[in-house]
Amino acid sequence: MELLKQKVKNEGIVLAKGVLKVDSFLNHQMDPFLMREIGREFKSLFAGDKITKVLTIESSGIAPGIMTALELEVPLIFARKQKSLTLTEDIYVEKVYSFTKRETNEITVSKKFIEPGERVLIVDDFLANGEAAFGLARIVEQAGATVAGIGIVIEKSFQPGRELLLKAGYRVESLVRIASLEDEKVAFVGEE
Amino acid sequence: MELLKQKVKNEGIVLAKGVLKVDSFLNHQMDPFLMREIGREFKSLFAGDKITKVLTIESSGIAPGIMTALELEVPLIFARKQKSLTLTEDIYVEKVYSFTKRETNEITVSKKFIEPGERVLIVDDFLANGEAAFGLARIVEQAGATVAGIGIVIEKSFQPGRELLLKAGYRVESLVRIASLEDEKVAFVGEE
Repeated sequence: MELLKQKVKNEGIVLAKGVLKVDSFLNHQMDPFLMREIGREFKSLFAGDKITKVLTIESSGIAPGIMTALELEVPLIFARKQKSLTLTEDIYVEKVYSFTKRETNEITVSKKFIEPGERVLIVDDFLANGEAAFGLARIVEQAGATVAGIGIVIEKSFQPGRELLLKAGYRVESLVRIASLEDEKVAFVGEE
Repeated sequence: MELLKQKVKNEGIVLAKGVLKVDSFLNHQMDPFLMREIGREFKSLFAGDKITKVLTIESSGIAPGIMTALELEVPLIFARKQKSLTLTEDIYVEKVYSFTKRETNEITVSKKFIEPGERVLIVDDFLANGEAAFGLARIVEQAGATVAGIGIVIEKSFQPGRELLLKAGYRVESLVRIASLEDEKVAFVGEE
């Protein structure tokens, strides 16, 4: 997705240890036109897949998620992150480890919002180790629904998430794929 | 806003102690068409106000916020909530007490995203005691910018937030105003 590549090139800031800061347009300040284009792009990728729900995770997944849901004309659900839970009767819970924050969160979705047989598109802002995507996929499968695909805004292709998800049989569509963040520079897959 | 009223009437669940659950369309599962209508409604209310940014707070404010930002053709910023902070040099920080969760969070916005002189529209999903709205307004003012208005999706008019914000000189526009949640029923302002 060319518009997104340009944004990453022009506004992304490479920090130490493979961290890409995109807080000017994706995960703190957000460009609504870019979000709309992201929604349209995911629609064109998954238009034939009979998606019934989009599922994302708070907070940075919500804006691309709602735009994708609008284009696909289905509801968005966002999973909540919490440190620990007491009541878990009416919710699906999965543990997700964050390598960036070095902590485990429990992510939750109310059982009533995913029905058996649904076809769910998972959308998230970043894919690195795949922890969040796998957690969301396990929730979909707990509900007896199908993961129709995983749509990622920015994939760090030098980390193992994509390979692990493909190996597990999921379809992964990433709008930009970053091959490397070495020497404080962004190199895209296919342009190294 | 009639569509929103209908949603609240048909899908809102009144819990004990004045809590209204709207997780089927607003803050867990989200209806993207409703979100788009909310954005259009805020645009029509604030179209003449030279808004330069929309500011909201994670997580439930993001979807109405991004749709409002899209309609007004300006960026959205979402404030982050955290329990405690160590580095605060480049960010504005305000304390916000949540009566529902009985905890104080620090909400933060990067300094680089609000310039002096900007006209900021604050958008949030709920207004009850006004804690979050005041916290966001103080951040705008710390930055030397102006709060052009406060746009609320659902106002609990039986709680003091609206009056306190008006008394402080802010313009408050709420898309639905709830007069009471007594006897497990939703009564709207003007329809009691």
